[in-house]
Amino acid sequence: MTSDPDVPDPDFSLDHVRREGLMASPGTELVTHDGAGRVELSFNVEDAGGAPPTQRSVRVPPGVTVFDSASWNGIAIDSTCGGHGTCHKCKVRVTSVVEEVAQRPSRNPTPVSRHDVRTFTRDQLDAGWRLACLVQATRDLKVDVPPLTTRPKAATVGVGRQVILRPAVQKRYVELAEPDLSDQRTDLDRLLAAIDDLAPQPDLHALRRLPHVLRAADWKVTAVVVDEVLVDVEPGDTTGQRYAIAFDLGTTTVVATLLDVALGTPVGVASMLNKQQPYGGDVITRISATMLDPKTLPRLQQAAATTLAELAAQVCREGGVDPRQVYEVAIAGNATMTALVLGIAPEPLGVAPFVMATAQPPTVLASDVGLDVHPRARAVFFPALGAYVGGDIVAGMLATGMDRDKRTRLFIDVGTNCELVVSDGDRILSTAAPAGPAFEGGAIRCGMRAADGAIEVIKLGATPEDAVQLGVIGDVEPKGLCGSGLVDAVAELVRVGLLDASGRFVPDEQAPEVAPALADRLTRIGEERVFVLHRPHADAVPEECVVLSQRDVRELQFAKAAISTGWTLLLEELGLEHRDVQQVLMAGSFGSYISPASAVRIGLVPKLPVLRIVSAGNVAGEGAKMALLSVRERAGAAALLQEVTYVELSDRPDFNDRFVDQLAF
Amino acid sequence: MTSDPDVPDPDFSLDHVRREGLMASPGTELVTHDGAGRVELSFNVEDAGGAPPTQRSVRVPPGVTVFDSASWNGIAIDSTCGGHGTCHKCKVRVTSVVEEVAQRPSRNPTPVSRHDVRTFTRDQLDAGWRLACLVQATRDLKVDVPPLTTRPKAATVGVGRQVILRPAVQKRYVELAEPDLSDQRTDLDRLLAAIDDLAPQPDLHALRRLPHVLRAADWKVTAVVVDEVLVDVEPGDTTGQRYAIAFDLGTTTVVATLLDVALGTPVGVASMLNKQQPYGGDVITRISATMLDPKTLPRLQQAAATTLAELAAQVCREGGVDPRQVYEVAIAGNATMTALVLGIAPEPLGVAPFVMATAQPPTVLASDVGLDVHPRARAVFFPALGAYVGGDIVAGMLATGMDRDKRTRLFIDVGTNCELVVSDGDRILSTAAPAGPAFEGGAIRCGMRAADGAIEVIKLGATPEDAVQLGVIGDVEPKGLCGSGLVDAVAELVRVGLLDASGRFVPDEQAPEVAPALADRLTRIGEERVFVLHRPHADAVPEECVVLSQRDVRELQFAKAAISTGWTLLLEELGLEHRDVQQVLMAGSFGSYISPASAVRIGLVPKLPVLRIVSAGNVAGEGAKMALLSVRERAGAAALLQEVTYVELSDRPDFNDRFVDQLAF
Repeated sequence: MTSDPDVPDPDFSLDHVRREGLMASPGTELVTHDGAGRVELSFNVEDAGGAPPTQRSVRVPPGVTVFDSASWNGIAIDSTCGGHGTCHKCKVRVTSVVEEVAQRPSRNPTPVSRHDVRTFTRDQLDAGWRLACLVQATRDLKVDVPPLTTRPKAATVGVGRQVILRPAVQKRYVELAEPDLSDQRTDLDRLLAAIDDLAPQPDLHALRRLPHVLRAADWKVTAVVVDEVLVDVEPGDTTGQRYAIAFDLGTTTVVATLLDVALGTPVGVASMLNKQQPYGGDVITRISATMLDPKTLPRLQQAAATTLAELAAQVCREGGVDPRQVYEVAIAGNATMTALVLGIAPEPLGVAPFVMATAQPPTVLASDVGLDVHPRARAVFFPALGAYVGGDIVAGMLATGMDRDKRTRLFIDVGTNCELVVSDGDRILSTAAPAGPAFEGGAIRCGMRAADGAIEVIKLGATPEDAVQLGVIGDVEPKGLCGSGLVDAVAELVRVGLLDASGRFVPDEQAPEVAPALADRLTRIGEERVFVLHRPHADAVPEECVVLSQRDVRELQFAKAAISTGWTLLLEELGLEHRDVQQVLMAGSFGSYISPASAVRIGLVPKLPVLRIVSAGNVAGEGAKMALLSVRERAGAAALLQEVTYVELSDRPDFNDRFVDQLAF
Repeated sequence: MTSDPDVPDPDFSLDHVRREGLMASPGTELVTHDGAGRVELSFNVEDAGGAPPTQRSVRVPPGVTVFDSASWNGIAIDSTCGGHGTCHKCKVRVTSVVEEVAQRPSRNPTPVSRHDVRTFTRDQLDAGWRLACLVQATRDLKVDVPPLTTRPKAATVGVGRQVILRPAVQKRYVELAEPDLSDQRTDLDRLLAAIDDLAPQPDLHALRRLPHVLRAADWKVTAVVVDEVLVDVEPGDTTGQRYAIAFDLGTTTVVATLLDVALGTPVGVASMLNKQQPYGGDVITRISATMLDPKTLPRLQQAAATTLAELAAQVCREGGVDPRQVYEVAIAGNATMTALVLGIAPEPLGVAPFVMATAQPPTVLASDVGLDVHPRARAVFFPALGAYVGGDIVAGMLATGMDRDKRTRLFIDVGTNCELVVSDGDRILSTAAPAGPAFEGGAIRCGMRAADGAIEVIKLGATPEDAVQLGVIGDVEPKGLCGSGLVDAVAELVRVGLLDASGRFVPDEQAPEVAPALADRLTRIGEERVFVLHRPHADAVPEECVVLSQRDVRELQFAKAAISTGWTLLLEELGLEHRDVQQVLMAGSFGSYISPASAVRIGLVPKLPVLRIVSAGNVAGEGAKMALLSVRERAGAAALLQEVTYVELSDRPDFNDRFVDQLAF
C-alpha cells in the first residue's frame, strides 16, 4: 500500500514547513506524505568483487529516507556527511524513476534536489541517479545500490547523525625487527614501540599468544586493541577485518547489526523474539517470575544469552565474517533487560521505589553475556536514567541527538512501558508512562504482534468499494490487529464519527446517518459492541471476524492517556505549549510503525502538522551502532546521565486528574 | 649445633664494626658470631583468646634477629618501626636467659641493648624480656611471644624494612538509609556515597550480589575494594577479616605466607616442592620440555596452579581463615616460573637472545592461576629486569631496600641460576650468572636437597675427637650433602690444607703432614680421589660413605667462579673494589643457608669481615608480603625497572678470561 504524493495534505505545505523552520534534513523540502501506511523499497545491492547483486526488500513508514531505510536494514551505502547532502557520496539509482516517467509522464517522478543537480548529469538524473539521503520514500521504490567505493572517515547513522569514525576497536599492522643480544626488549615492548599512537595495556590472552605469533608470523603481525587493552595479536595484516555487533536488546524483540567499524557500514542485520518470552511478555511479569523462584534468574540470563548468541552467529554468517573478528559488542536495553542479561537480580526494579543496582553497568567480556565471538571481545552497556528510562532510551537519545539539537523535540518510545523525553534545546526532561500492553496486542480482543496476518494499516472510506481498506503484513488473509492497526482503527472510527470523543461507539440507530457504508459492520459479540474490520467469508458470525471491540477502544484510550499525560506534564515543566514542539520522534519497534496521522488524531502525540511527526526507527540499535563507531559518542551517552533530569510521575498528586483529562479523543 | 659467642671472631670487633659503619640494625652492636652453623629458636606463642600457647621451633643461620626468625616463619610479633628499636613494641621473653644465668653465672646472658634498658625494668630484663628486633640469635634460644596487643599502622618485613600499612585490599563497613521515592539512587551510588575515601569501579560479581546483600543485611554491609575495584559486598561488619597470600614461586620450592593485611602480620606459612619438578629440576629443562611437546606447557601451568592452590588451602587451614576472605595474592617468581604459571610459552627465555614476553605481567584474577580463594581476588606479579633476573629478584630488592639504602651492597641469590645485584647507593646494576646445579645437590656425587639426612654444616678439627663435626638436618644418620654442606666441606678442606688453591686434593703422601687427624679419610673410589665425610659403620667401603669427590670440588669451583666473575664485573662497572662492599646479602632458599665464613673462604663472596655477610632469608617471599601490605611498596617495585640497569655478561669478550681468573680458591 502506497500513499499518493499528488493528494495535498491539509496540514502541510512547503511554505508552511519553511516558515516553521521544520526542515529536519534537506529531504523534507522535496516531498510530502500523509503520514499513513507503509512503503516497500526493493534494493538491488551490487557486489564490489563482481559477484551477482543481491536483492533485499524492506517496508518502512513513508517519509524515511532511502539511506536510512537501507542502513536500518544492514545495507551499506557510502556516506560521510550525516545525511545533509554535502558529501555527495550516497549515490544510488532509483530505477523505478524510469518506469514512473514511462507510465505517467504527466506526474512528477521521484523528485530531484538541488544537491542532486550538482552531483549528477541530466542523463544520470533521467536514469534515476539520486543522493540516497535526500530521497524520502513516499511510495514503493526500486533502488540499485553501487558497491562501496570510499574508505570513509565518517558514517551516517541514527536520525541523520554524522559520526566521525573513532571506534574503540583499533588495529595496527607492524613489521618488527627481530631481537638479538644487543636488543633484548620484551616482545610486548617491541610491539608497543612500533604502535606510536596507542598505549594499550596487554591482557593475558594477548600475552599468551604474543611469543608464538610473533615468531610464527616472522615478526609481521597485527595488534588488536579494544578500548586501550591489547586483546590479541594476529599473524600478518588483518587491519581490514574489524567488526562489532550492536544489539537492541528489547523485551519482545532483539535486533543485532554486524558493523564493519573500519568503514562504518552495516554488514548484516538479524532479529528474533527475545527467548525470555516464555517467562512473560513484559518486564514486570519477568521480574515477578524471578521473585517466585530463585532458579528463574539464571534461566532468564541464559535465555537472553542464547538470544544474543544466535543472533551473533546469524549476522556473522550473513556477513561472511569470522566471529573471532568481532572484538566488541554494544548492548542497548531497558534496565530490566540489562540486569537480566548480566545476571543481576531485578526485583528492586519491580517494586517501589524502583531502584537500579547501578546506572552504568561495567564493561564486561562478551563471553560474560554468552557470546561466542573473539574470546576477549568487550561488551559495553548504555547507562540508564532510571528504572524505567533505561539504556535503550539513552541510546535513542544519542541516535536522535536529543542533547545536540536546538529545536524543541519530543521523543516517544511506545511500548508497554512508554518512555518520554522532551528537550527545549537547553534542558532535557524524561519520564516513563505505564501504557499497558495494548500496543503489543495484549489485552486486545483480536490483538497480535506485528507478524504475518496482522492488520497494520487501516483506512475507512465513504463508498462500499473503499469502505475498509486494510494493509496486512505478508499480504495474507488478515488474522488480527497489531499496535499500528489498532491506532489506525480507532483514529479512523473517530474521524468518520462512529466513535465519539469519549471513546464510545455511537448508538446503533445513529450509525447509518454517520457512516452509511460502514454502519452494517457495527455489531455485537455477547453484550459488547464491536466493529468488524475483516469478515473471512460472507456468512461469518462476528466471533469469526477480526473486530475492534468497545473494550479494545478503552484499552487504547487508557494507554494514550497515560502517554499524553506524561508529555503534557513534561512540557508544562519546561513552560511549553503543545504547539511549541517542532518535532515528535516516534521510536521503537512499535512507535516507528504507528501512523503519524492516526497518532495525531487520537491524541497520542500533540496536535501538530503531520510532517512534524517523524518515524525514527530502531533508535536504540542506532545508538548502539554509534557507540561502536565512536568512543566520543559513547562518552556522549555517559554524559547524558548528567544532562537529563528524570521526572518521577508516579508520586505526583495531580497525576490522576490530568490522566482523566487526557482520556478523550 | 650452636656457635659460641665467647670465641672472638678473628675478623671482627665491635670497634671495627663501628669504624666501618656497618651497623645494619641496632642489633649488630650487641653480639658477634662466626658466621657458621645453625641456631634453633623455640617459640612459645601465647594466644590472645586465652587458648593454650602453641610451640614452634625454627632453625636459622646465626645472626638473624629473633623478630625476623619469627616473621619469616609466620609468627606474628608486634612492631611498627622497622626493627630499629624505636617503637618498643616487639617485646618477647627470652626464657633461656634465666637458664643461662643459672647454669653459667660467669658468662654474659643474651645481651641487653640500650633500647631494652629504656623499655624494661631490671626485674623484667632478668626475667629475659627483650625487644625481639634487637636480639640476634647466636645460640639456641627459647622465646615466649605475647599475643598481639596493638592495631599497628606499620609492619616490619623483609630485611629490617618498615612498611606503613596501605594494602590494596580495603574494607569499609557502612549502614545505609533505605531508598524511597524521594531517594531513588541506585544501590551502587548509595553504597559509594557512604565510602567517601574510596572511588572504586564495581565489578560484575559485586553488582550481582549488591541488590540481594543490601536488602538481606538490612542495609548494613561491608564493601570489599581491591586496588580500586569493588569486588564484593558482604553482609554485616567483616572489616576484621582481610587476608592476602604472598607466594615465593621458586623453581624448586614454593612458599606461601597468609597475611592479615589489616594488622600486617603473618597468619600461616607453608612450603612444598614445586609440582613442576617431574618436568626437570631447573628452568632450562622445563623450557626444553615445552619445546619438545606442545602439551607440556598446559601441564606445567596446571602443576604450578595445583602447587599454589594446595599451599593456599594449607595456610588458610593453618590460620583458621575462610579462603573466600583472601582477596589478593602476590606472586614472586623468576621469569620462567612466572611465564609458566600464566600459561605464556617460555621458549624465547631459553634460547639467545633470551627475550621475555613482557617485563610486567598484568594483574589477573587469582582464579586465572588456579587459586580457589575469593572468586574476584586479584593476583599481582612482580616485574622482571630480564629473562634471568626475574620478579623474584625484584621482590628481593624490595625486601632488602636495594634502592633505598645508601650503602654499597651486593645481593646474591644463589641457585642454578645465580642473580647478582650491586648498588653503590646511587646506581644499581644486576646480572645473572649460570652457576649450574651444584648448590641444589645436582651433579654432586653425594648431593641431595636440604632435607632430612642432608649434611648442612661441616667443621673440621685438629684432634681425632673433633676431626669432622657434622650438622645434619633432622639430626638423623647423614645420607648426603646439601648446598651449604658442600660449601662448608670445600671451605674447611681448603682451610686445613687438604685442598690446594687450585682445587686439587694434595698428594696422598702430603696429607698426613697437612692434617694428621683427617689424612685417613682421603681415599679413592675407582680412579677418583674422595674425602670421606661420614662412614656409616667401621667396615664401610668408600662407596657406602658420604664423600666429597674431586669432581664435586670442580663443580663447586665452576659455580663459584661464575658467580664471582659476575660480581667482580659489576663492581668494576661501578668503579669499586671488593673492600668497598659494606654488606653482602645472601638470599634465597640456598643462599640464606650458606655459612658466611665458608662463602668468604672459597671466594663465593668478596673477602670481607664475616659480619658484613648477612643471611637475608626468603627475600622474594618477603617482597611479596611488602607488595600486599603497601601499594606504595608495590609501586616501588615497578619503579625498580627504571632504576636498575641489567648488564648482559654472556656477550662480553673478556668473560671467559675473567672466569678462569676466578677459579682458584
